[in-house]
Amino acid sequence: MITGNTALIAHIGFPTHSFKAPMIYNPWFEKAGIDTVVVPMGCRTEHFPALLKSVFSLTNIAGALITMPHKVTAAGLLDEVSPTARIAGACNAVRRAADGRLVGDMFDGEGFVRGILRKGCKLKDARALVVGAGGVGSAIAASLAAAGVGAIGLFDLNAQSADTLAGRLRMHYPALEATTGSKDPAGCDLVVNCTPLGMNEGDPLPVDVSRIAPATFVGEVVMKKETTAFLAAAIARGCRVQVGTDMLFEQIPAYLEFFGLPVATPELLRSLARIRY
Amino acid sequence: MITGNTALIAHIGFPTHSFKAPMIYNPWFEKAGIDTVVVPMGCRTEHFPALLKSVFSLTNIAGALITMPHKVTAAGLLDEVSPTARIAGACNAVRRAADGRLVGDMFDGEGFVRGILRKGCKLKDARALVVGAGGVGSAIAASLAAAGVGAIGLFDLNAQSADTLAGRLRMHYPALEATTGSKDPAGCDLVVNCTPLGMNEGDPLPVDVSRIAPATFVGEVVMKKETTAFLAAAIARGCRVQVGTDMLFEQIPAYLEFFGLPVATPELLRSLARIRY
Repeated sequence: MITGNTALIAHIGFPTHSFKAPMIYNPWFEKAGIDTVVVPMGCRTEHFPALLKSVFSLTNIAGALITMPHKVTAAGLLDEVSPTARIAGACNAVRRAADGRLVGDMFDGEGFVRGILRKGCKLKDARALVVGAGGVGSAIAASLAAAGVGAIGLFDLNAQSADTLAGRLRMHYPALEATTGSKDPAGCDLVVNCTPLGMNEGDPLPVDVSRIAPATFVGEVVMKKETTAFLAAAIARGCRVQVGTDMLFEQIPAYLEFFGLPVATPELLRSLARIRY
Repeated sequence: MITGNTALIAHIGFPTHSFKAPMIYNPWFEKAGIDTVVVPMGCRTEHFPALLKSVFSLTNIAGALITMPHKVTAAGLLDEVSPTARIAGACNAVRRAADGRLVGDMFDGEGFVRGILRKGCKLKDARALVVGAGGVGSAIAASLAAAGVGAIGLFDLNAQSADTLAGRLRMHYPALEATTGSKDPAGCDLVVNCTPLGMNEGDPLPVDVSRIAPATFVGEVVMKKETTAFLAAAIARGCRVQVGTDMLFEQIPAYLEFFGLPVATPELLRSLARIRY
């Protein structure tokens, strides 16, 4: 029950209709007796900088979840941004530090990495292929680098996106081998689809699955259906896989830690969520 | 359940701990399937103008409830303010009109008046005594004037407050007889305590109750206890009375109308409220 003592997590984006966070966080807060509530705030681009500032002037603000179209803007408005968020060039979580500074981080990639690690995927010195170098691809590449992969191949139809991301990765992780221009999965330990391919029926597969070895771990960010055509093809080749929604539920504990709130397991969060995938 | 489609009513003030609105409005919204939620926003004085502007830039804002210490400031920040709010010099409800303008109103007095009218108190051409010319006293005086009383006596320990209020009343209601300087209830059809007297055990009574006639209607704004010492003394004299919380629950339907939301009766709102008085 919301009272005058309830803290807010502002979920800021536009449009808001597809927001999922309220239905994932709030059931956990209720269950655990955490007097905090995630509230949607629909905000257009031109109003975002002022809104972010006002939201963090509130005496009962616990943090903010930032989503489309503000993730990139947010990263430029904060006092401190994590290396992962700097590499991704985007930020989807903001809190006020004890000293008053606004700090930001980006947990899309962290969620992906936590999920595959728990499924037994080894990342230390691994060779990864990240197809799609947009927001989520950048975040996953940054988190893979932080997790210690040895090489990342980056591919995007917009070659400049991939090259820019590769440059940022090399700057922060000089020992990392970051290459661009190929989406051949042969020889990779991990292949991740970070493109929207799979959102629509009849989309082509993001890579040539016939060149993925059975020992390769295959990940997906598309959440439209549990097992996308890409994952189905990978499973048919004997690969272990991670579905898109795993990334979602695996990242929630990272946000809860970031906001200084009690943490639940991804399994519990998924079972409590008032939305099904 | 809060989703990405939920509209917000921002309840803005500081401190927030004694806020009651979330526990009164939200149970009604849940019961009636109104996808709107009242959320507390703790806001210090220096941040209020920017916050109000940002809140009304949100695409899912349904309105704002403004409370201490921002009611007076709010009245000066809006495009249009009702006569009642202008006389009270304060505003506790804001919405965006269809044409984009921010409009404000003040329903403390409206709640009081609705309650006494429903209890059979006749206000047309009545003589009223309002003791206490602060925020709530000003609001009640303005609403009494709007309801057609013939004369209002205003008394405040700060004589200037009463004089200023009387001037505003005369400006908006030239036919109204507005006098100041006396708190003698003799000859009045209605006497209202709008001072904090009664908040603390042992407070003196706001007026000399021995001079209140049994036919006089007596109202109270103090909500600390259901029947204050002042009301008990009036009842002992045979007067009909209205308790402080009646003003509270009677004004909620007025806010709901103002925000364009489905309206409940004060009785239903009181029965659903997750707080007891």
